[in-house]
Amino acid sequence: MDRSKVRPGRIRPAPENFLDADSLDAIRRGQIDEDRRSFIRKSFLAATAAMAAPAAMAAGDGDEHILNLPPWSKKLGYPVAHNPYGQPSKYESNLVRRTSPGLAATDQANVAFSPLQGMFGIITASGLHFERHHQGWVDIDPAKHRLMINGLVDKPRVYTMDDLMRLPSVSRIHFVECGANSAMEWGNAAVPTVQYTHGMLSGNEYTGVLLSTLLEDAGFDEKKAKYLLAEGADGSSMTRTIDIERALDDAMVAYGSNGEMLRPENGYPLRLVVPGVQGVSWVKWLRRLEVGDQPYATKDETSHYVDLMPDGMQRQYTSIHEAKSVITTPSGGQKLLTQGYYNVSGLAWTGRGHIKRVDVSVDGGRNWHTARLEEPVLPKALTRFNIDWVWDGGPAILQSRAIDSTGFVQPTYSQLRDARGSRSIYHNNAIQSWQVSENGEVANVHVG
Amino acid sequence: MDRSKVRPGRIRPAPENFLDADSLDAIRRGQIDEDRRSFIRKSFLAATAAMAAPAAMAAGDGDEHILNLPPWSKKLGYPVAHNPYGQPSKYESNLVRRTSPGLAATDQANVAFSPLQGMFGIITASGLHFERHHQGWVDIDPAKHRLMINGLVDKPRVYTMDDLMRLPSVSRIHFVECGANSAMEWGNAAVPTVQYTHGMLSGNEYTGVLLSTLLEDAGFDEKKAKYLLAEGADGSSMTRTIDIERALDDAMVAYGSNGEMLRPENGYPLRLVVPGVQGVSWVKWLRRLEVGDQPYATKDETSHYVDLMPDGMQRQYTSIHEAKSVITTPSGGQKLLTQGYYNVSGLAWTGRGHIKRVDVSVDGGRNWHTARLEEPVLPKALTRFNIDWVWDGGPAILQSRAIDSTGFVQPTYSQLRDARGSRSIYHNNAIQSWQVSENGEVANVHVG
Repeated sequence: MDRSKVRPGRIRPAPENFLDADSLDAIRRGQIDEDRRSFIRKSFLAATAAMAAPAAMAAGDGDEHILNLPPWSKKLGYPVAHNPYGQPSKYESNLVRRTSPGLAATDQANVAFSPLQGMFGIITASGLHFERHHQGWVDIDPAKHRLMINGLVDKPRVYTMDDLMRLPSVSRIHFVECGANSAMEWGNAAVPTVQYTHGMLSGNEYTGVLLSTLLEDAGFDEKKAKYLLAEGADGSSMTRTIDIERALDDAMVAYGSNGEMLRPENGYPLRLVVPGVQGVSWVKWLRRLEVGDQPYATKDETSHYVDLMPDGMQRQYTSIHEAKSVITTPSGGQKLLTQGYYNVSGLAWTGRGHIKRVDVSVDGGRNWHTARLEEPVLPKALTRFNIDWVWDGGPAILQSRAIDSTGFVQPTYSQLRDARGSRSIYHNNAIQSWQVSENGEVANVHVG
Repeated sequence: MDRSKVRPGRIRPAPENFLDADSLDAIRRGQIDEDRRSFIRKSFLAATAAMAAPAAMAAGDGDEHILNLPPWSKKLGYPVAHNPYGQPSKYESNLVRRTSPGLAATDQANVAFSPLQGMFGIITASGLHFERHHQGWVDIDPAKHRLMINGLVDKPRVYTMDDLMRLPSVSRIHFVECGANSAMEWGNAAVPTVQYTHGMLSGNEYTGVLLSTLLEDAGFDEKKAKYLLAEGADGSSMTRTIDIERALDDAMVAYGSNGEMLRPENGYPLRLVVPGVQGVSWVKWLRRLEVGDQPYATKDETSHYVDLMPDGMQRQYTSIHEAKSVITTPSGGQKLLTQGYYNVSGLAWTGRGHIKRVDVSVDGGRNWHTARLEEPVLPKALTRFNIDWVWDGGPAILQSRAIDSTGFVQPTYSQLRDARGSRSIYHNNAIQSWQVSENGEVANVHVG
């Protein structure tokens, strides 16, 4: 199967245009309301009509098709545990992380983006988890790794990994997004695919120890403690300030991800997990937590990961992700080969509470339709949405808009730029638009 | 880090016996009730006391420890996308699937078990998903794969993978368990570790198309249709009968698992997902669904995957998993090196509804204590439980007991054998017992 980088093969022709003129016009105007559902249903069914079985089958002789066996049905396969640790199919070699050419001077301080256009659900396969390093990734011997807790504590601690893995553990599904996700889009629609517009985003089930457990263990000073400093063991010594309230709420030190130990490029053997907060604070290769009474004003929170506002001032310590969403299929670089039914699918997430609703527009934001949310819908986790759409062959602009449980509504680019200008790097949560041309090509545009 | 097959390294010493005689006795009798919680909390805190920072730190000179930097803190690491598709740490090479020596004559018709003793949460890393094949696994070219729907339908269909991936999609988290999981345990406690007692069990987020969508598309005969035949494309032509009610409820054809395409050994590019039903019915490499009006009585449902009852008769078509659970840590083959606090962790699951409660006993079933369930608790999905335990150094027998939303209570071995004898192979959901000896060794035993 010839899958290009953007997997256009997943967008396939409907066999014929079965829509009447009135229906086409209604859809062009975006009238996919409840009354249109049965119509869409029919469109979907008609769309598959040409997939009907060959003539021999229709004549009742379906066995002919089946008896013409492919080679894999006639041979002995590979044994169990042929790969003691399993790997993807050889046909999936294009579904990989990618860097963006020219984005960074060195790949040790760069980004590898997740191929969201070919991914499903709310769990990110660990092999496809995005990467963002400041001095490259390391594979630390867990027997030699230590976590120190010091500062405003009665009993400073140094834990081994085995110590940590004995403590009360929790498992929770959360999203992690780099604060610089969608960074290249502040000025204009700059990159071609959803891998590059939104691919610094992953969802995982983390297992570890709550910070509240560790801070209690160390006897932190409940009156004076206001902030934590988290420090990583890689060459960059990444250091970030965390509010103590957030630390005591749902933050954790995680050793497990998606049922196994963390991957080296994601912080093995230990990383900080701060649900809802930008990824840079989820310090990887975590070696130290210091309890303090004021923000630490480290390099990566005073000069980087700050927001350049329209008045020229820098806004610091804006770390919580506001509600955001993106359609992953169809998306930039893909091509709709013919008219007909499409399942429009995407992701929504928020750093506050949970996703309440996702609206989808096919006409650039004039009309909105409520998407189906796949269960489970969890706090500070990715939420998968799906909605039916019949493409009539005319131009269309696909958008999704997330609303979270606090009532926050994902902004348009106009709204975002009105508040924050267009010279920022971080914290871009504007509505993403995918323009479908009459030839079916899907492109990144900024609308609304 | 030296991790043996059973990762005893995860079970580490508590530094000292800090318990008084009365407390020891209370725990020996299993009295971990609500009144004991604060005591356990203290035990946990005391257990970590000896992890205190070295003398230099206590003297306020913690920097000495930090400045003595390990090599990974002083070098440039690997670049992003060094592995475009990521891999586990080199230190995790013991966490793999394994076969059980002598279990099958050929590894093309064998089992590879998941290492549950070293796994976390409710999502199974795809590289560790258990394997059970009947003629080996194959890596099918998805461009050449077809799914046929025939039988009692108006419009027989042949779908390509691209056709299927265009249809309305759903994403859902479910468990899959081989009907022969725990098979070797019917007679007595036969195998040493949880990898072999319960390792034919995995949990995944599946993405695909509901069977109800496909059957509607094919125009199935709603009056006559009672059963489906599902058929695989591997050399074994695995064929299984599925009730039409179950098919129309929550069954699906899945192409995605944990955010990416299925792995070859798990049915790439397409498998049937029948939530709550034993794994053999989740036909891998799915190539055909036939709608019929009676069970198909295939080899793998009439002579295999049947229950030999005490009266010598075979019970067929018993495919739904009843509630079951197992403690994965501590578990067989591990060793508790000293007394003190332990986090007891395990999995519970049911083919009907969802897990309502998990009870844990440390005294072989005389007293039971309610475990914490990690969110999310989903229908027909793995549920992770955790509970605090302080080991006093005396003999103990650890057990877990699942209760599901239908009120079903996981049976003891006595109860199971009273109903079904001891000569079965399949559908063993008895309570698992792990015996902790005074020397800390944990062994598989049958109790109760």
